[in-house]
Amino acid sequence: MKEFDLIKRYFAQGGHTRKDVLVGIGDDCAVAKVPENQHLAVTTDTLIAGVHFLPDAPARSVAYKAVAVNLSDLASMGAEPAWISLSLSLPHCDEAWIEEFASGLYELTEYYSVQLIGGDTVAGPMAMTITAQGFIPPDNELRRSRAKPGDWIYATGSLGDAGAGLDILQNTITVPQRHRDYLVNRHYYPTPRVMAGTALRRTANACIDVSDGLVSDLKHILNASNCGATVHVDRLPISAPLFESVGAQAAYRYALTAGDDYELVFTVNEEQRGNLETSLSNANVKATCIGQITGHAGQLDLRLYDERYSLPESSGYEHQFDHG
Amino acid sequence: MKEFDLIKRYFAQGGHTRKDVLVGIGDDCAVAKVPENQHLAVTTDTLIAGVHFLPDAPARSVAYKAVAVNLSDLASMGAEPAWISLSLSLPHCDEAWIEEFASGLYELTEYYSVQLIGGDTVAGPMAMTITAQGFIPPDNELRRSRAKPGDWIYATGSLGDAGAGLDILQNTITVPQRHRDYLVNRHYYPTPRVMAGTALRRTANACIDVSDGLVSDLKHILNASNCGATVHVDRLPISAPLFESVGAQAAYRYALTAGDDYELVFTVNEEQRGNLETSLSNANVKATCIGQITGHAGQLDLRLYDERYSLPESSGYEHQFDHG
Repeated sequence: MKEFDLIKRYFAQGGHTRKDVLVGIGDDCAVAKVPENQHLAVTTDTLIAGVHFLPDAPARSVAYKAVAVNLSDLASMGAEPAWISLSLSLPHCDEAWIEEFASGLYELTEYYSVQLIGGDTVAGPMAMTITAQGFIPPDNELRRSRAKPGDWIYATGSLGDAGAGLDILQNTITVPQRHRDYLVNRHYYPTPRVMAGTALRRTANACIDVSDGLVSDLKHILNASNCGATVHVDRLPISAPLFESVGAQAAYRYALTAGDDYELVFTVNEEQRGNLETSLSNANVKATCIGQITGHAGQLDLRLYDERYSLPESSGYEHQFDHG
Repeated sequence: MKEFDLIKRYFAQGGHTRKDVLVGIGDDCAVAKVPENQHLAVTTDTLIAGVHFLPDAPARSVAYKAVAVNLSDLASMGAEPAWISLSLSLPHCDEAWIEEFASGLYELTEYYSVQLIGGDTVAGPMAMTITAQGFIPPDNELRRSRAKPGDWIYATGSLGDAGAGLDILQNTITVPQRHRDYLVNRHYYPTPRVMAGTALRRTANACIDVSDGLVSDLKHILNASNCGATVHVDRLPISAPLFESVGAQAAYRYALTAGDDYELVFTVNEEQRGNLETSLSNANVKATCIGQITGHAGQLDLRLYDERYSLPESSGYEHQFDHG
């Protein structure tokens, strides 16, 4: 058996089986069916070892994250995930690594009823590209460009944990032992906010997922919507482990600038606010109001207990350059 | 402007604009609409510098080939191409290279009315992954698994040119100057057989595109269909430039084992043969009958003027390991 035939074996079945996949892995293309009266949402993200994940990250985490960041993009448009395609580039065939990678991948696809429908396995530097597809009813998609002055800004879950987790792994910070696993796992195993995304349809105005950091990603909404925003730093959702580990000031910086949390940040107008809180609570999603959209195009006004708050220069996390 | 923002600019518009793309590049996902009563065909291929293309290949060729190999996979299922997503990894930002790459990409997407709907641009070793999507009426897809004993085997265009082109570029063969450009361009700018693919719907039984070499790829049909085949080497479609450049024996070896021609190889039963030749001729596609499917599962019987023909050991082109 050739080296790469072995790799192929781990992906031959595609994990979870969906009825809308008519031809799965094994032919030149997959063939699938989009439900009537649904549109297709498509997103592609690439992760490269040493750029987007630590070269010694557990294989399960690498796979988990590669799937999660793509499902997170679907979630931030309000789409329900359906299928993924995987292109996997590996320098050599380490069977234990591949087995663990495949199990991390299938763990998440099984949970979200997503089928792996195809891809490619090539010899090369360790990297992977996933294209994820999902469904969304016509005109329900959440756009970056639809924030309006007066909208309330919310964030799901908690912010900053993944950045602290990365710093722990890189030995640039040390934290109490009791908080280490939580923070490291938030870096290794981000939760795509799939239920939150679909719950936001028809109530939220604009939405994005936090991949580069709250400030960077919120600015994408502000630029696309030609608005500004006031964000209350003291209202940012920060986990107890992060607060206790690094203190308030560092926690604020992580929450504002660290990437890879994959929480959703979205805006909602006053009239829809009640509906939105009800849908989120029905979906069992925690979301925190962190500020408000303003008419001052391009201006992001950070406030700490109503005083102006400034970020240290050159904060932010510039590894990734989405063009889609 | 950050280095990668420049790259982003070249892909911000997505080239050809289609009405079925509701949200193009610039948000977290693209949103698009599959026509009623059509299924979706999806394929993903990765090209890595030094593995799938020469590191000094012209940027226009790299882009052209990356798109062509994916459209070729759609064609071999009979699908009509619609959208592509591009993940591009580049070690640094060489603006002239990127401009040429973008123009090679758009040249092909424009020709086939395909829209670039998203993707990702990352810093890393030179590589690209394209996911291409297309439409196909229900139950019209051409499968590898549907060849039947007695089916005639056809190949479009001519075989072996791209392999000779690669050898010319690597200085392992020399050819008369008058044939050089033709052969090199067949390597650099493969033609995806899009019209042939749709013309084969409802008449051909099995189909595959020649990426790894005729023998390797035909074996995928034989394995999936549990059949054998007789191929008449003297009937293989070989271009005059290849014949004149390398002579008959070497031309046969190229035609049987060299990859990257992206011609379609398909099978058709006796009753549909007339219909098929009519559809192909209406689509202005040249196809040549090269042999016949047999009931001898797994046996590929090569014949040269009715004598048994053997390939030298270890022929074939093993760079790529599709699992989809």
